Amino acid sequence: MTALIYKNGRLMVSELPTPIPEPGEALIRVLQAGICNTDLEIMAGYLGFEGVLGHEFVGVVEQDHGAGLVGKRVVGEINLPCYRCERCLSGLSNHCSSMRALGMRQKDGCFAEYLTLPVTNLHVVSDRISNDEAVFVEPAAAAVRIAEQHHLRPSEPVLVLGDGKLGLCVALVLDALGLEVEVLGRNPEKLARLHEFGVGTYCVSREDGAVLAYHPGGGGSEAGPERRLRDIPVVVEVTGSQSGLETAMKYLRPEGKLILKSTVAGAAALNLSPAVVNELQLLGSRCGPFEPVLRLMERGRLSLSGLISKKFSLLEGEEAFAQAQERGVLKVVLHNE
Amino acid sequence: MTALIYKNGRLMVSELPTPIPEPGEALIRVLQAGICNTDLEIMAGYLGFEGVLGHEFVGVVEQDHGAGLVGKRVVGEINLPCYRCERCLSGLSNHCSSMRALGMRQKDGCFAEYLTLPVTNLHVVSDRISNDEAVFVEPAAAAVRIAEQHHLRPSEPVLVLGDGKLGLCVALVLDALGLEVEVLGRNPEKLARLHEFGVGTYCVSREDGAVLAYHPGGGGSEAGPERRLRDIPVVVEVTGSQSGLETAMKYLRPEGKLILKSTVAGAAALNLSPAVVNELQLLGSRCGPFEPVLRLMERGRLSLSGLISKKFSLLEGEEAFAQAQERGVLKVVLHNE
Repeated sequence: MTALIYKNGRLMVSELPTPIPEPGEALIRVLQAGICNTDLEIMAGYLGFEGVLGHEFVGVVEQDHGAGLVGKRVVGEINLPCYRCERCLSGLSNHCSSMRALGMRQKDGCFAEYLTLPVTNLHVVSDRISNDEAVFVEPAAAAVRIAEQHHLRPSEPVLVLGDGKLGLCVALVLDALGLEVEVLGRNPEKLARLHEFGVGTYCVSREDGAVLAYHPGGGGSEAGPERRLRDIPVVVEVTGSQSGLETAMKYLRPEGKLILKSTVAGAAALNLSPAVVNELQLLGSRCGPFEPVLRLMERGRLSLSGLISKKFSLLEGEEAFAQAQERGVLKVVLHNE
Repeated sequence: MTALIYKNGRLMVSELPTPIPEPGEALIRVLQAGICNTDLEIMAGYLGFEGVLGHEFVGVVEQDHGAGLVGKRVVGEINLPCYRCERCLSGLSNHCSSMRALGMRQKDGCFAEYLTLPVTNLHVVSDRISNDEAVFVEPAAAAVRIAEQHHLRPSEPVLVLGDGKLGLCVALVLDALGLEVEVLGRNPEKLARLHEFGVGTYCVSREDGAVLAYHPGGGGSEAGPERRLRDIPVVVEVTGSQSGLETAMKYLRPEGKLILKSTVAGAAALNLSPAVVNELQLLGSRCGPFEPVLRLMERGRLSLSGLISKKFSLLEGEEAFAQAQERGVLKVVLHNE
């Protein structure tokens, strides 16, 4: 089969044997797969992974050892816990101490014609959900994870810091969960697209962070930005930069929650004393549950397909990755359709 | 009156007029006052405060505009919220936007013969509590704050990182709250003193952090240190150093709580990605409630007077501060008795 692999510091389209599902696993033909910033970080050395990249996909089951899913369209959870270690047995299988992960750790990913995953990782996709929507289930689940971990009050506004693809996804998911969401970013086009969905936006200067434009969300008050960008109860940090963290702490209300969504590779200068003085809560957040996302998508409450910037065939994989790294580009999708 | 003031970058014993209590305030004659690391940080430029230092005290009320406290022994909460701003009116008076604070911000402190504080800040001290105990109520309340903010389960061990005076205080308070506490530090003498109280201790190398000695707490299991120093559900960081933060993240269980107790002045290199990957909770924590501490002290469940290293008269204030900065020294107390 054709696959996009990362090896010896290089990304390349290669021919590999079609994988053979182990007991309990299904063989899935990939329909679409999304490029995530984590894929780009892996190419920058994160995790030290080599093999087939990719972990966001929608596909069709072709073999499943009799599990009854053959022919069904599925999405799949990316973590493969051992279910045997102390962490797994104490309810922390999300943090298995010998975790394998699709396209990240000891398991080939979905930028290929086929992949294998345990049947228990799969979720059937309703006919009401298109492939263009379903390919976003994994990143949307990571956004749902925030509400799974912490009590987010419907009366308390949430500020999402960062207008990259994950930022926009987080904003739309939290909006779909009934929260009042605003996004602060630097790219007027991306923010304009988001505002069409009814989400409030702040566009700030790349130089000094000053607010250049504020567009309140649908149904939101028209209060000026100066008043609103302080004492915010919940800020989600998805800029992927250390300066985003300091900005987040500045905007937060005392005792407020700062959700950390992006892994910033490497250490940078950071002064955490505002977190102590203002009794902030800095809360790491990672992968989340698929079912709430599928339910929201099926009921038409959550649509993310508008975040697709461009599609490429698997053979155009290298070009697709180059595109995904361009400023202003949102989701780049690889398809085998 | 005699007072110890910090002005123009210098600490000095001075003669000042005795303060006159405003309406709602009491005049308090100081019996004992403790030197806190925050006092030392103020002398390093923190908060930019000038005036009478000190915020940990026990004293006797001499005037109170008829509030009925004259002659009573009291301790006092250090924060003076305005009770008028938006934060105060939304239940965040702990974080008043124009907060004054005893010996820290727009309010002279307790390293003097007399101080004034609002009557509503005062708590009467039971006859069963000595002055040597009562002088610890303020720092002990800061330790109680952790349990006030977050759910600490009696079945989950707590590791306190740091064997300074605040670390030892936090450990003894959490122990008094029925939690299983261990302290990790570098000073064998301080740790030995703590172990006498029944708290488990790890002594680690100053060079590489390796465990040199482990003494399980009273009633604790005798498991070796290697097994225990991982996957800890709650770690309290009181080292006052950035390296303490990274150590804390290393020892924590995924989804665990890292309580941030010390304000580290200035920014330092810090990699927060373990917090995201392991979904850690970094939780700032500051001042706390006095009544639980007074109750624990009155019932004999909490005794901190053993942490007093040395006492000085107010006139010996400069010498007292020099002593407080020596390595290995715990609480230094100024007395007017």
